Amino acid sequence: MAGIRTPRPIRTLKDEMPVIYGQFTTACELLEKHYRNIQDIEFTIERGKLYILQTRTGKRTAQAAVKVAVDMVKEGLITKEEAILRVEPAHLDSILHRRIDPRAKLEVIAKGLPASPGAASGKVVFDAEEAEKLGGEGRKIILVRTETTPDDIHGIVAAQGILTSRGGMTSHAAVVARGMGKPCVCGCEALRIDYAAANFTVNGLVVKKGDLISIDGATGQVMLGEVPMLDPELSPEFIELLQWADEIRTLGVRANADTPADALKSREFGAEGIGLCRTEHMFMAQERLPIVQQMILAAGPKERQEALDKLLPMQQTDFYGILKAMAGYPVTIRLLDPPLHEFLPDTEELVEEVSRLLYTEGDQKELKKKRDLLKKVRALTEFNPMLGHRGCRLGITFPDVYAMQARAIFQATVQLIREGYRVIPEVEIPLVGEVNELTVLRDLVTEIATKVSQETGVEFEYSVGTMIEVPRAALTAEKIAGEADFFSFGTNDLTQTTFGFSRDDAEAKFLHAYIDKKILPDNPFAVLDRSGVGKLMQMTVELGRQTKPDLVIGICGEHGGEPSSIEFCHQIGLNYVSCSPYRVPIARLAAAQAKANNEKGGK
Amino acid sequence: MAGIRTPRPIRTLKDEMPVIYGQFTTACELLEKHYRNIQDIEFTIERGKLYILQTRTGKRTAQAAVKVAVDMVKEGLITKEEAILRVEPAHLDSILHRRIDPRAKLEVIAKGLPASPGAASGKVVFDAEEAEKLGGEGRKIILVRTETTPDDIHGIVAAQGILTSRGGMTSHAAVVARGMGKPCVCGCEALRIDYAAANFTVNGLVVKKGDLISIDGATGQVMLGEVPMLDPELSPEFIELLQWADEIRTLGVRANADTPADALKSREFGAEGIGLCRTEHMFMAQERLPIVQQMILAAGPKERQEALDKLLPMQQTDFYGILKAMAGYPVTIRLLDPPLHEFLPDTEELVEEVSRLLYTEGDQKELKKKRDLLKKVRALTEFNPMLGHRGCRLGITFPDVYAMQARAIFQATVQLIREGYRVIPEVEIPLVGEVNELTVLRDLVTEIATKVSQETGVEFEYSVGTMIEVPRAALTAEKIAGEADFFSFGTNDLTQTTFGFSRDDAEAKFLHAYIDKKILPDNPFAVLDRSGVGKLMQMTVELGRQTKPDLVIGICGEHGGEPSSIEFCHQIGLNYVSCSPYRVPIARLAAAQAKANNEKGGK
Repeated sequence: MAGIRTPRPIRTLKDEMPVIYGQFTTACELLEKHYRNIQDIEFTIERGKLYILQTRTGKRTAQAAVKVAVDMVKEGLITKEEAILRVEPAHLDSILHRRIDPRAKLEVIAKGLPASPGAASGKVVFDAEEAEKLGGEGRKIILVRTETTPDDIHGIVAAQGILTSRGGMTSHAAVVARGMGKPCVCGCEALRIDYAAANFTVNGLVVKKGDLISIDGATGQVMLGEVPMLDPELSPEFIELLQWADEIRTLGVRANADTPADALKSREFGAEGIGLCRTEHMFMAQERLPIVQQMILAAGPKERQEALDKLLPMQQTDFYGILKAMAGYPVTIRLLDPPLHEFLPDTEELVEEVSRLLYTEGDQKELKKKRDLLKKVRALTEFNPMLGHRGCRLGITFPDVYAMQARAIFQATVQLIREGYRVIPEVEIPLVGEVNELTVLRDLVTEIATKVSQETGVEFEYSVGTMIEVPRAALTAEKIAGEADFFSFGTNDLTQTTFGFSRDDAEAKFLHAYIDKKILPDNPFAVLDRSGVGKLMQMTVELGRQTKPDLVIGICGEHGGEPSSIEFCHQIGLNYVSCSPYRVPIARLAAAQAKANNEKGGK
Repeated sequence: MAGIRTPRPIRTLKDEMPVIYGQFTTACELLEKHYRNIQDIEFTIERGKLYILQTRTGKRTAQAAVKVAVDMVKEGLITKEEAILRVEPAHLDSILHRRIDPRAKLEVIAKGLPASPGAASGKVVFDAEEAEKLGGEGRKIILVRTETTPDDIHGIVAAQGILTSRGGMTSHAAVVARGMGKPCVCGCEALRIDYAAANFTVNGLVVKKGDLISIDGATGQVMLGEVPMLDPELSPEFIELLQWADEIRTLGVRANADTPADALKSREFGAEGIGLCRTEHMFMAQERLPIVQQMILAAGPKERQEALDKLLPMQQTDFYGILKAMAGYPVTIRLLDPPLHEFLPDTEELVEEVSRLLYTEGDQKELKKKRDLLKKVRALTEFNPMLGHRGCRLGITFPDVYAMQARAIFQATVQLIREGYRVIPEVEIPLVGEVNELTVLRDLVTEIATKVSQETGVEFEYSVGTMIEVPRAALTAEKIAGEADFFSFGTNDLTQTTFGFSRDDAEAKFLHAYIDKKILPDNPFAVLDRSGVGKLMQMTVELGRQTKPDLVIGICGEHGGEPSSIEFCHQIGLNYVSCSPYRVPIARLAAAQAKANNEKGGK
């Protein structure tokens, strides 16, 4: 009991003291029936007499928790609702991430804090620049630093996982890695990192740059070499539990997916549609980027149209694939959202190249070309791109781009209808803050739909809606609802604008201090801030449904996959949450819990 | 009447047709009495008979409007309230800006659109880089461009005034110049600009780079050479009208002023305190910047404290000056607000210097120094500085900086009390979005106040309040009010975050398109957006006064000097508006109009 003796298995008791063992099992059954949960029971035997000292609900792994809950329903001990409420959705994270094969023999060399779940293997790199370079070449690397700083972000992006020797669960590395869904072990104090020698020492062992290591962000373990991993898979009990969750919940669950592969994966995990299909990633592909750049840098509308004509069939193929993968379910496709300069070369790099050509007396033609490009990139550069020329503001100033995207969506729709599929495209206009923006762009989309229908002779259904992601959209939701078939909360941006936080900057510079000093209870980009952002959401739901009582309202920010945020979404009456595919099971469970808790609370 | 004959003075009628003249003057008096305003009367005399054809309220200049209104009150024709309502505050802009001496003989060479009021003289410059360079050397220049783009901003900043040959009242140049309060004539189509030859031609006249020109942004006139200017001054009638306004209005009027000179000027214009004293400008002075940089780049708290110790007496002098200039009135001093990298060299320039040193094999020590500096500047650079590590976030992460500022304020206060002045310092914490931020920083300020009081043996009054400039502050105002002695709306930032607009980027990239296409009725940074930003303000007032019924609430954004926004501030029950010194008279008048209109509307 004091933890000083190594415990012996309970079955030895059966052989040694059969009477006491009988009393003990009776007591255990009684206690488990009474508490309706597995118990962690402390007992002692003194002078041949059994004393039960304490009992409490047992702790267990996520897998075990699922199995126990399902078994208890089958034994008639608890109801399905109770089973649902007994599994902590946040713990499911570990089941739903890549993990180390439990059968593998591990050479654990150190243990740090389990800062961001998932497991990863890669070569040790100590420098963010090098991480970026090697990552760009497709190498798998683990970035190892005493601590990370905002300077290291590009290295973190390129790495498979992060390992630090200093800092806690809210250190820069931990916060950033969780945000990116990357495995991270932090505060691994046994590590002695020597940047100059490019190695680290741990308990006498020297690990050099380029050596292979593995980390497990769920346990904090660091291993030498590559270890066998298991892709996440659902146990039969888990599948059964999720089916019960589906029977209980009233909140829909969709996925955020930009590719047919992600769409299929999310269907497998139980998604009932796509709540956010971002189109910008489709523009980033290597063979498309030059065309996208041609579109952006076009000297006039004619040149821009040439680029758009090339992009149209590509986008049509994109939408064909994703609509087909989700046939029968709605697919919300968001028109182009990010600031255009994200598709262009980096200004600093260009400045450097221009300087190099200038001072080394390089090719004059090349110098002129780079200078011209730099000038154009500079003209597109913004002080605060997050709040700049992006979202529907692009659609207003460059309607051809949105027109091309709408045409690609509707042509893909017609193609699939002809092939016998039922497809439900929902065209989403991002970053609306004023109803007139939506009116203008809705007209544009509707006009294209009518044209495509006339050209092809095929009738099709579609809807046009908007993201609610700036406070003004929430504050004027009764007007915006008049022009929208649906609303979808973009809570990442809404959190940014409501707090006045740039997520990248906040997480890099001060958010960990805020959480350390308890100024904020949680990172509001992870757990929805109910008193600020949530208040705007509630206002939106009320105002929007004043105008349209049946308005479909969902959420597609990262909060859509976080249990406490999902509970809030249920409470304010959203129709669905949408999250990354691997979080769909968590969302299904959390949605059922929200319903079950609400009914309990309501009684 | 058809405008084809040159009209003759009315007094000739007296001599030619005395009877008709008598009838005419009687009719005029009757009409003016009836309409209670000066009349623009059309008449004809046919076969010895006078026919009055039409009468309407006469148009006049701002100066004339003021004189007529005051005269009519003295003649007992209208009330003071009516006089107040007859002067359009927006027209006063022209009285309150530098203007061309009306006695000057002008050589007008062209006329464009009066895009931003005020007059300026300077040497012609065609290039933003050159404008920046010459402006930096203290030369007065006029930037001349066919159109301006975001690329030209640094040139606009450096110029006395802007002249463009293309674009309307909402063109980039016009919008930006109005935002900066700089004279601008735009769309001056007669200009033929030849960048290569560095000159412009207008009606055969060639004006070369470096030639002196003058522009009048109130009339759109372009003149050759320098012309005599008059500083704004208030006529006796205007002063009288403003006194009546003061009797009527209930809304206070303060000024935004960062220097004793501005504070004195605003007192002269009738300000009843300072609503916003920004402390960052005080950090930018040439002799201070190196110390500020030392503070920012400090390797640790000790080095930072050394820099702060040097800054303390300087800041104390700053606050001494401004508190003394405003003795007897409240002075709201905002603690440091902007992101720190604003005080550091530009990244791109550093990249260029590093490249130059690298490729020209320059001084290796210098190269290392620049590289180190670049690294530090990069670490401070943010993706969206507007939403980044600034405002109270600096106070939370670097409390020493705010502590130094608080000490400087209180030491200056003690100094003035000892000299016999009554001073009312109000310490303002910027960018609060969560009450805990204010609690922590209020405690810090209070602690310093207690210390200074103990050290000096002098008791003093002070208050601690906050800006309301992010939506979350408005949404949680009932909590924030618990820790705040006053609220002040920072509507520039509140407009940015409510719309999700970065002002610089929006005005440069898409806001003119929005106004052109009537998506927005006005630039929301000029005229307060009542349905979005205004709704948040109203919510703030209600929630804040739920907690503290007597909470003092003001506004210090640029809207505080704009008549329609002032009307709204009156309607929602603010205590005061604060605006730039030269707008104080406009605000006094607009505040009185709001009151008078409200009472009319209320009946």
